[in-house]
Amino acid sequence: MKRRELKIDKLPTVRRLPAYLNLLRELSIKGEQTVSSSYLAERMGIEPILVRKDLELTRINGTPRIGYSIPDLIRGIEGFLGLGETLDAFLVGVGQLGSSLLSNQDLMNLGLRIVAAFDKDPQKARAEANGVPVFGVDRLGELSRRINVCLAILCVQPEEAQEVTDILVDAGVKGIWNFTSANLVVPDEVIAQNEDLSSGFAVLSVKMARNRMVER
Amino acid sequence: MKRRELKIDKLPTVRRLPAYLNLLRELSIKGEQTVSSSYLAERMGIEPILVRKDLELTRINGTPRIGYSIPDLIRGIEGFLGLGETLDAFLVGVGQLGSSLLSNQDLMNLGLRIVAAFDKDPQKARAEANGVPVFGVDRLGELSRRINVCLAILCVQPEEAQEVTDILVDAGVKGIWNFTSANLVVPDEVIAQNEDLSSGFAVLSVKMARNRMVER
Repeated sequence: MKRRELKIDKLPTVRRLPAYLNLLRELSIKGEQTVSSSYLAERMGIEPILVRKDLELTRINGTPRIGYSIPDLIRGIEGFLGLGETLDAFLVGVGQLGSSLLSNQDLMNLGLRIVAAFDKDPQKARAEANGVPVFGVDRLGELSRRINVCLAILCVQPEEAQEVTDILVDAGVKGIWNFTSANLVVPDEVIAQNEDLSSGFAVLSVKMARNRMVER
Repeated sequence: MKRRELKIDKLPTVRRLPAYLNLLRELSIKGEQTVSSSYLAERMGIEPILVRKDLELTRINGTPRIGYSIPDLIRGIEGFLGLGETLDAFLVGVGQLGSSLLSNQDLMNLGLRIVAAFDKDPQKARAEANGVPVFGVDRLGELSRRINVCLAILCVQPEEAQEVTDILVDAGVKGIWNFTSANLVVPDEVIAQNEDLSSGFAVLSVKMARNRMVER
Protein backbone atom coordinates (compact mmCIF):
# COMPACT_ATOMS: atom_id res chain seq x y z
CA MET A 1 0.00 0.00 0.00
CA LYS A 2 1.37 3.40 -0.94
CA ARG A 3 1.21 6.18 1.57
CA ARG A 4 -0.99 8.25 -0.73
CA GLU A 5 -3.75 5.64 -0.47
CA LEU A 6 -3.63 5.53 3.28
CA LYS A 7 -7.00 5.81 4.97
CA ILE A 8 -7.50 7.65 8.22
CA ASP A 9 -8.54 4.42 9.95
CA LYS A 10 -5.02 3.05 9.46
CA LEU A 11 -3.48 5.71 11.69
CA PRO A 12 -3.51 3.54 14.84
CA THR A 13 -1.43 1.05 12.85
CA VAL A 14 1.00 3.77 11.74
CA ARG A 15 1.28 4.77 15.39
CA ARG A 16 2.46 1.25 16.25
CA LEU A 17 4.97 0.91 13.41
CA PRO A 18 7.94 2.53 15.22
CA ALA A 19 7.44 0.09 18.12
CA TYR A 20 7.40 -2.89 15.71
CA LEU A 21 10.54 -1.52 14.11
CA ASN A 22 12.34 -1.29 17.49
CA LEU A 23 11.34 -4.82 18.37
CA LEU A 24 12.37 -6.24 15.00
CA ARG A 25 15.74 -4.48 15.10
CA GLU A 26 16.28 -5.87 18.61
CA LEU A 27 15.54 -9.42 17.36
CA SER A 28 17.74 -8.91 14.31
CA ILE A 29 20.68 -7.87 16.52
CA LYS A 30 20.18 -11.10 18.49
CA GLY A 31 20.56 -13.01 15.20
CA GLU A 32 16.90 -14.00 14.75
CA GLN A 33 15.70 -14.43 11.15
CA THR A 34 11.94 -14.99 11.55
CA VAL A 35 9.25 -14.02 14.03
CA SER A 36 5.69 -15.20 14.64
CA SER A 37 2.69 -12.90 14.88
CA SER A 38 1.93 -14.38 18.31
CA TYR A 39 5.37 -13.38 19.61
CA LEU A 40 4.96 -9.87 18.22
CA ALA A 41 1.46 -9.71 19.73
CA GLU A 42 2.74 -10.64 23.17
CA ARG A 43 5.54 -8.07 23.08
CA MET A 44 3.26 -5.35 21.70
CA GLY A 45 0.51 -6.15 24.19
CA ILE A 46 -2.13 -6.57 21.46
CA GLU A 47 -3.99 -9.49 19.83
CA PRO A 48 -2.26 -11.63 17.11
CA ILE A 49 -5.07 -10.86 14.65
CA LEU A 50 -4.32 -7.15 15.03
CA VAL A 51 -0.60 -7.77 14.42
CA ARG A 52 -1.44 -9.56 11.15
CA LYS A 53 -3.74 -6.68 10.16
CA ASP A 54 -1.05 -4.11 11.02
CA LEU A 55 1.60 -5.87 9.00
CA GLU A 56 -0.63 -6.06 5.91
CA LEU A 57 0.25 -2.39 5.49
CA THR A 58 3.84 -3.37 4.63
CA ARG A 59 2.64 -5.94 2.04
CA ILE A 60 5.00 -8.51 3.58
CA ASN A 61 3.32 -11.91 4.04
CA GLY A 62 4.11 -14.40 6.75
CA THR A 63 4.62 -18.13 6.05
CA PRO A 64 2.46 -20.56 8.08
CA ARG A 65 4.40 -22.18 10.97
CA ILE A 66 7.54 -20.17 10.09
CA GLY A 67 6.37 -16.62 10.57
CA TYR A 68 7.57 -13.40 9.02
CA SER A 69 11.06 -12.74 7.68
CA ILE A 70 12.56 -10.16 10.06
CA PRO A 71 14.76 -8.42 7.43
CA ASP A 72 11.78 -8.17 5.05
CA LEU A 73 9.57 -6.67 7.75
CA ILE A 74 12.24 -4.16 8.76
CA ARG A 75 12.66 -3.04 5.14
CA GLY A 76 8.88 -2.94 4.66
CA ILE A 77 8.26 -0.74 7.69
CA GLU A 78 11.23 1.52 6.94
CA GLY A 79 9.94 1.96 3.41
CA PHE A 80 6.42 2.70 4.57
CA LEU A 81 7.55 5.28 7.12
CA GLY A 82 9.78 6.90 4.51
CA LEU A 83 12.99 6.35 6.47
CA GLY A 84 15.94 7.68 4.57
CA GLU A 85 13.85 10.72 3.62
CA THR A 86 14.44 13.56 6.07
CA LEU A 87 11.81 16.02 7.23
CA ASP A 88 13.26 19.45 8.01
CA ALA A 89 11.68 21.32 10.89
CA PHE A 90 11.86 24.46 13.01
CA LEU A 91 11.59 24.18 16.77
CA VAL A 92 9.93 27.09 18.57
CA GLY A 93 10.56 27.34 22.33
CA VAL A 94 13.89 26.04 23.65
CA GLY A 95 12.82 25.22 27.22
CA GLN A 96 13.38 21.85 28.85
CA LEU A 97 10.92 20.00 26.63
CA GLY A 98 12.21 21.73 23.48
CA SER A 99 15.81 20.93 24.43
CA SER A 100 14.93 17.29 24.97
CA LEU A 101 13.50 17.12 21.44
CA LEU A 102 16.69 18.63 19.99
CA SER A 103 18.65 15.67 21.32
CA ASN A 104 16.05 12.94 20.76
CA GLN A 105 17.87 10.22 18.86
CA ASP A 106 14.70 8.18 18.16
CA LEU A 107 13.19 11.08 16.24
CA MET A 108 16.41 11.66 14.29
CA ASN A 109 16.41 7.95 13.37
CA LEU A 110 12.93 8.43 11.92
CA GLY A 111 14.17 11.29 9.72
CA LEU A 112 13.39 14.42 11.74
CA ARG A 113 16.01 17.11 11.21
CA ILE A 114 15.63 20.29 13.26
CA VAL A 115 17.42 22.92 11.19
CA ALA A 116 16.84 25.95 13.42
CA ALA A 117 15.34 26.77 16.80
CA PHE A 118 13.69 29.95 18.08
CA ASP A 119 13.23 31.41 21.54
CA LYS A 120 11.93 34.69 22.92
CA ASP A 121 14.73 34.77 25.51
CA PRO A 122 17.55 36.87 23.97
CA GLN A 123 20.12 34.93 26.04
CA LYS A 124 19.14 31.64 24.43
CA ALA A 125 18.74 33.26 21.04
CA ARG A 126 22.43 33.95 20.67
CA ALA A 127 23.56 30.43 21.35
CA GLU A 128 23.43 27.02 19.78
CA ALA A 129 21.53 24.11 21.28
CA ASN A 130 22.78 20.62 20.39
CA GLY A 131 24.50 22.07 17.33
CA VAL A 132 21.30 23.76 16.12
CA PRO A 133 21.37 27.56 15.81
CA VAL A 134 18.87 29.42 18.02
CA PHE A 135 17.32 32.66 16.75
CA GLY A 136 15.06 35.25 18.35
CA VAL A 137 11.40 34.47 17.83
CA ASP A 138 11.02 37.87 16.08
CA ARG A 139 12.90 36.36 13.12
CA LEU A 140 10.51 33.40 12.80
CA GLY A 141 8.42 34.76 9.90
CA GLU A 142 11.39 35.95 7.87
CA LEU A 143 13.40 32.72 8.30
CA SER A 144 10.38 30.46 7.66
CA ARG A 145 10.05 32.12 4.27
CA ARG A 146 13.78 32.00 3.48
CA ILE A 147 14.49 28.47 4.67
CA ASN A 148 11.80 26.33 3.11
CA VAL A 149 10.71 24.05 5.97
CA CYS A 150 7.30 22.43 6.02
CA LEU A 151 7.13 21.40 9.69
CA ALA A 152 7.33 23.35 12.94
CA ILE A 153 7.45 21.95 16.46
CA LEU A 154 5.77 24.10 19.10
CA CYS A 155 7.13 24.00 22.65
CA VAL A 156 6.10 27.52 23.71
CA GLN A 157 3.68 28.57 26.44
CA PRO A 158 0.07 27.66 25.54
CA GLU A 159 -0.97 31.35 25.48
CA GLU A 160 1.70 32.10 22.84
CA ALA A 161 0.91 29.09 20.67
CA GLN A 162 -1.76 30.59 18.38
CA GLU A 163 0.27 33.72 17.60
CA VAL A 164 3.33 31.64 16.69
CA THR A 165 1.13 29.32 14.61
CA ASP A 166 -0.32 32.24 12.64
CA ILE A 167 3.19 33.47 11.78
CA LEU A 168 4.24 29.98 10.67
CA VAL A 169 1.11 29.37 8.58
CA ASP A 170 1.48 32.78 6.88
CA ALA A 171 5.04 31.79 6.00
CA GLY A 172 3.83 28.59 4.33
CA VAL A 173 4.49 25.93 6.99
CA LYS A 174 2.26 22.90 6.30
CA GLY A 175 2.51 20.99 9.56
CA ILE A 176 2.52 21.96 13.25
CA TRP A 177 3.52 19.43 15.88
CA ASN A 178 1.89 20.99 18.91
CA PHE A 179 3.37 20.11 22.31
CA THR A 180 1.34 22.82 24.06
CA SER A 181 -2.12 22.35 25.55
CA ALA A 182 -3.57 25.05 23.23
CA ASN A 183 -6.25 24.12 20.69
CA LEU A 184 -4.82 25.66 17.54
CA VAL A 185 -6.89 27.10 14.72
CA VAL A 186 -5.29 26.36 11.33
CA PRO A 187 -6.49 26.39 7.71
CA ASP A 188 -7.70 23.07 6.25
CA GLU A 189 -4.53 22.45 4.24
CA VAL A 190 -2.33 22.65 7.37
CA ILE A 191 -1.95 19.67 9.70
CA ALA A 192 -1.86 20.47 13.42
CA GLN A 193 -1.09 17.41 15.46
CA ASN A 194 -1.35 17.60 19.23
CA GLU A 195 1.17 15.77 21.34
CA ASP A 196 -0.39 16.90 24.56
CA LEU A 197 0.88 14.87 27.51
CA SER A 198 -2.33 15.70 29.38
CA SER A 199 -4.19 13.30 27.06
CA GLY A 200 -1.82 10.46 27.82
CA PHE A 201 -2.04 11.14 31.53
CA ALA A 202 -5.85 11.25 31.45
CA VAL A 203 -5.98 7.83 29.78
CA LEU A 204 -3.42 6.39 32.18
CA SER A 205 -5.14 7.66 35.32
CA VAL A 206 -8.54 6.39 34.15
CA LYS A 207 -7.03 2.96 33.37
CA MET A 208 -5.37 2.84 36.80
CA ALA A 209 -8.58 3.86 38.59
CA ARG A 210 -10.41 1.08 36.72
CA ASN A 211 -7.81 -1.49 37.78
CA ARG A 212 -8.07 -0.42 41.41
CA MET A 213 -11.87 -0.87 41.19
CA VAL A 214 -11.45 -4.40 39.84
CA GLU A 215 -9.09 -5.33 42.68
CA ARG A 216 -11.48 -4.25 45.41
CA MET B 1 -21.05 6.74 33.67
CA LYS B 2 -18.68 5.74 36.45
CA ARG B 3 -15.04 5.16 35.63
CA ARG B 4 -15.27 1.54 36.76
CA GLU B 5 -17.73 0.83 33.93
CA LEU B 6 -15.52 2.38 31.30
CA LYS B 7 -15.00 0.25 28.22
CA ILE B 8 -11.72 0.18 26.36
CA ASP B 9 -13.38 1.66 23.25
CA LYS B 10 -13.99 4.90 25.16
CA LEU B 11 -10.28 5.61 25.55
CA PRO B 12 -10.06 7.88 22.48
CA THR B 13 -12.76 9.98 24.16
CA VAL B 14 -10.83 10.06 27.45
CA ARG B 15 -7.79 11.17 25.44
CA ARG B 16 -9.76 14.19 24.18
CA LEU B 17 -11.23 15.22 27.54
CA PRO B 18 -8.28 17.38 28.68
CA ALA B 19 -8.53 19.35 25.41
CA TYR B 20 -12.28 19.88 25.92
CA LEU B 21 -11.54 21.04 29.44
CA ASN B 22 -8.98 23.58 28.26
CA LEU B 23 -11.38 24.93 25.66
CA LEU B 24 -14.29 25.15 28.09
CA ARG B 25 -12.19 26.93 30.71
CA GLU B 26 -11.04 29.38 28.04
CA LEU B 27 -14.69 30.11 27.09
CA SER B 28 -15.66 30.39 30.74
CA ILE B 29 -12.93 33.00 31.36
CA LYS B 30 -14.35 34.98 28.41
CA GLY B 31 -17.72 34.99 30.20
CA GLU B 32 -19.53 32.48 27.95
CA GLN B 33 -22.26 30.38 29.58
CA THR B 34 -23.20 27.93 26.83
CA VAL B 35 -21.53 26.30 23.87
CA SER B 36 -22.80 24.36 20.84
CA SER B 37 -21.48 20.97 19.77
CA SER B 38 -20.71 22.42 16.34
CA TYR B 39 -18.46 25.10 17.86
CA LEU B 40 -16.66 22.49 19.97
CA ALA B 41 -16.34 20.26 16.89
CA GLU B 42 -14.74 23.03 14.88
CA ARG B 43 -12.23 23.90 17.61
CA MET B 44 -11.42 20.23 18.28
CA GLY B 45 -11.11 19.46 14.57
CA ILE B 46 -13.61 16.57 14.73
CA GLU B 47 -17.24 15.96 13.63
CA PRO B 48 -20.16 17.34 15.74
CA ILE B 49 -21.63 13.84 16.08
CA LEU B 50 -18.38 12.71 17.71
CA VAL B 51 -18.47 15.66 20.12
CA ARG B 52 -21.98 14.65 21.21
CA LYS B 53 -20.83 11.04 21.64
CA ASP B 54 -17.78 12.15 23.65
CA LEU B 55 -19.80 14.33 25.98
CA GLU B 56 -22.26 11.50 26.75
CA LEU B 57 -19.50 10.18 28.98
CA THR B 58 -20.04 13.13 31.34
CA ARG B 59 -23.83 12.51 31.45
CA ILE B 60 -24.41 16.22 30.78
CA ASN B 61 -27.10 16.78 28.13
CA GLY B 62 -27.23 19.69 25.72
CA THR B 63 -30.42 21.68 25.07
CA PRO B 64 -31.51 22.02 21.42
CA ARG B 65 -30.64 25.47 19.94
CA ILE B 66 -28.97 26.53 23.21
CA GLY B 67 -26.20 24.00 23.55
CA TYR B 68 -24.40 22.75 26.61
CA SER B 69 -23.97 24.60 29.89
CA ILE B 70 -20.25 25.38 30.13
CA PRO B 71 -20.03 25.21 33.96
CA ASP B 72 -21.88 21.86 33.95
CA LEU B 73 -19.55 20.41 31.32
CA ILE B 74 -16.46 21.61 33.18
CA ARG B 75 -17.69 20.00 36.41
CA GLY B 76 -18.67 16.82 34.52
CA ILE B 77 -15.28 16.40 32.88
CA GLU B 78 -13.36 17.27 36.05
CA GLY B 79 -15.39 14.69 37.93
CA PHE B 80 -14.86 12.05 35.30
CA LEU B 81 -11.10 12.60 35.18
CA GLY B 82 -10.96 12.50 38.97
CA LEU B 83 -9.55 16.02 39.31
CA GLY B 84 -9.04 16.91 42.92
CA GLU B 85 -7.67 13.41 43.51
CA THR B 86 -3.89 13.34 43.23
CA LEU B 87 -1.84 10.51 41.80
CA ASP B 88 1.58 10.17 43.44
CA ALA B 89 4.42 9.11 41.18
CA PHE B 90 8.14 8.45 41.02
CA LEU B 91 10.15 9.82 38.12
CA VAL B 92 13.13 7.76 36.97
CA GLY B 93 15.70 9.55 34.80
CA VAL B 94 16.20 13.29 35.37
CA GLY B 95 17.47 14.23 31.92
CA GLN B 96 15.98 17.00 29.81
CA LEU B 97 12.70 15.20 29.20
CA GLY B 98 12.42 14.11 32.83
CA SER B 99 13.11 17.65 34.02
CA SER B 100 10.45 19.03 31.71
CA LEU B 101 7.90 16.67 33.27
CA LEU B 102 8.87 17.81 36.79
CA SER B 103 7.80 21.33 35.88
CA ASN B 104 4.80 20.48 33.67
CA GLN B 105 1.94 22.54 35.05
CA ASP B 106 -0.72 20.89 32.86
CA LEU B 107 0.05 17.51 34.41
CA MET B 108 -0.01 18.95 37.93
CA ASN B 109 -3.41 20.49 37.15
CA LEU B 110 -4.65 17.00 36.28
CA GLY B 111 -3.49 15.68 39.67
CA LEU B 112 -0.03 14.25 38.97
CA ARG B 113 2.29 14.72 41.96
CA ILE B 114 5.88 13.59 41.51
CA VAL B 115 7.05 12.84 45.06
CA ALA B 116 10.60 11.70 44.30
CA ALA B 117 12.96 11.41 41.34
CA PHE B 118 15.84 9.02 40.66
CA ASP B 119 18.93 9.23 38.51
CA LYS B 120 22.04 7.10 38.03
CA ASP B 121 24.23 10.20 37.91
CA PRO B 122 25.51 10.74 41.50
CA GLN B 123 25.79 14.51 40.83
CA LYS B 124 22.08 14.80 40.11
CA ALA B 125 21.21 12.36 42.86
CA ARG B 126 22.31 14.71 45.62
CA ALA B 127 20.23 17.65 44.46
CA GLU B 128 16.64 18.68 44.17
CA ALA B 129 14.89 19.26 40.87
CA ASN B 130 11.93 21.65 40.91
CA GLY B 131 11.56 21.09 44.63
CA VAL B 132 11.47 17.30 44.22
CA PRO B 133 14.25 15.30 45.96
CA VAL B 134 16.46 13.27 43.61
CA PHE B 135 17.89 9.93 44.81
CA GLY B 136 20.39 7.49 43.32
CA VAL B 137 18.69 4.86 41.19
CA ASP B 138 20.16 2.17 43.49
CA ARG B 139 17.61 3.26 46.12
CA LEU B 140 14.64 2.78 43.78
CA GLY B 141 13.53 -0.62 45.08
CA GLU B 142 13.84 0.30 48.74
CA LEU B 143 12.02 3.64 48.41
CA SER B 144 9.27 2.21 46.17
CA ARG B 145 8.45 -0.18 49.00
CA ARG B 146 8.65 2.47 51.73
CA ILE B 147 6.79 5.25 49.97
CA ASN B 148 3.65 3.66 48.65
CA VAL B 149 3.38 5.07 45.11
CA CYS B 150 1.42 3.28 42.40
CA LEU B 151 2.80 5.08 39.34
CA ALA B 152 6.30 5.49 37.94
CA ILE B 153 7.37 7.64 34.99
CA LEU B 154 10.26 6.25 32.96
CA CYS B 155 12.60 8.71 31.25
CA VAL B 156 15.73 6.54 31.22
CA GLN B 157 17.67 5.20 28.24
CA PRO B 158 15.67 2.52 26.37
CA GLU B 159 18.25 -0.17 27.19
CA GLU B 160 17.82 0.51 30.93
CA ALA B 161 14.02 0.57 30.84
CA GLN B 162 13.24 -3.11 31.42
CA GLU B 163 15.62 -3.44 34.37
CA VAL B 164 14.11 -0.38 36.07
CA THR B 165 10.61 -1.69 35.32
CA ASP B 166 11.38 -5.05 36.95
CA ILE B 167 12.56 -3.30 40.14
CA LEU B 168 9.41 -1.14 40.21
CA VAL B 169 7.03 -4.04 39.56
CA ASP B 170 8.72 -6.13 42.27
CA ALA B 171 8.18 -3.23 44.65
CA GLY B 172 4.45 -3.17 43.87
CA VAL B 173 4.13 -0.29 41.39
CA LYS B 174 0.89 -0.72 39.38
CA GLY B 175 1.44 1.67 36.49
CA ILE B 176 4.41 2.60 34.30
CA TRP B 177 4.26 5.67 32.08
CA ASN B 178 6.93 4.77 29.57
CA PHE B 179 8.61 7.67 27.74
CA THR B 180 11.31 5.40 26.31
CA SER B 181 11.12 3.54 23.01
CA ALA B 182 11.51 0.17 24.80
CA ASN B 183 8.70 -2.39 24.62
CA LEU B 184 8.28 -3.28 28.28
CA VAL B 185 7.28 -6.71 29.55
CA VAL B 186 5.02 -6.38 32.62
CA PRO B 187 2.61 -8.72 34.45
CA ASP B 188 -1.08 -8.52 33.48
CA GLU B 189 -2.10 -6.53 36.54
CA VAL B 190 0.38 -3.73 35.77
CA ILE B 191 -0.42 -1.04 33.22
CA ALA B 192 2.45 0.04 30.98
CA GLN B 193 1.49 2.99 28.83
CA ASN B 194 3.84 4.12 26.09
CA GLU B 195 4.24 7.81 25.42
CA ASP B 196 6.71 7.27 22.66
CA LEU B 197 7.18 10.41 20.57
CA SER B 198 8.28 8.24 17.65
CA SER B 199 4.65 7.13 17.24
CA GLY B 200 3.40 10.69 17.04
CA PHE B 201 6.11 11.60 14.57
CA ALA B 202 5.34 8.57 12.39
CA VAL B 203 1.67 9.56 12.17
CA LEU B 204 2.54 13.19 11.47
CA SER B 205 5.04 12.42 8.71
CA VAL B 206 2.66 9.99 7.01
CA LYS B 207 -0.15 12.60 7.15
CA MET B 208 2.16 15.25 5.70
CA ALA B 209 3.35 12.93 2.91
CA ARG B 210 -0.30 12.23 2.05
CA ASN B 211 -1.12 15.95 1.91
CA ARG B 212 1.83 16.59 -0.40
CA MET B 213 0.56 13.81 -2.71
CA VAL B 214 -2.89 15.41 -2.84
CA GLU B 215 -1.40 18.79 -3.78
CA ARG B 216 0.58 17.45 -6.71
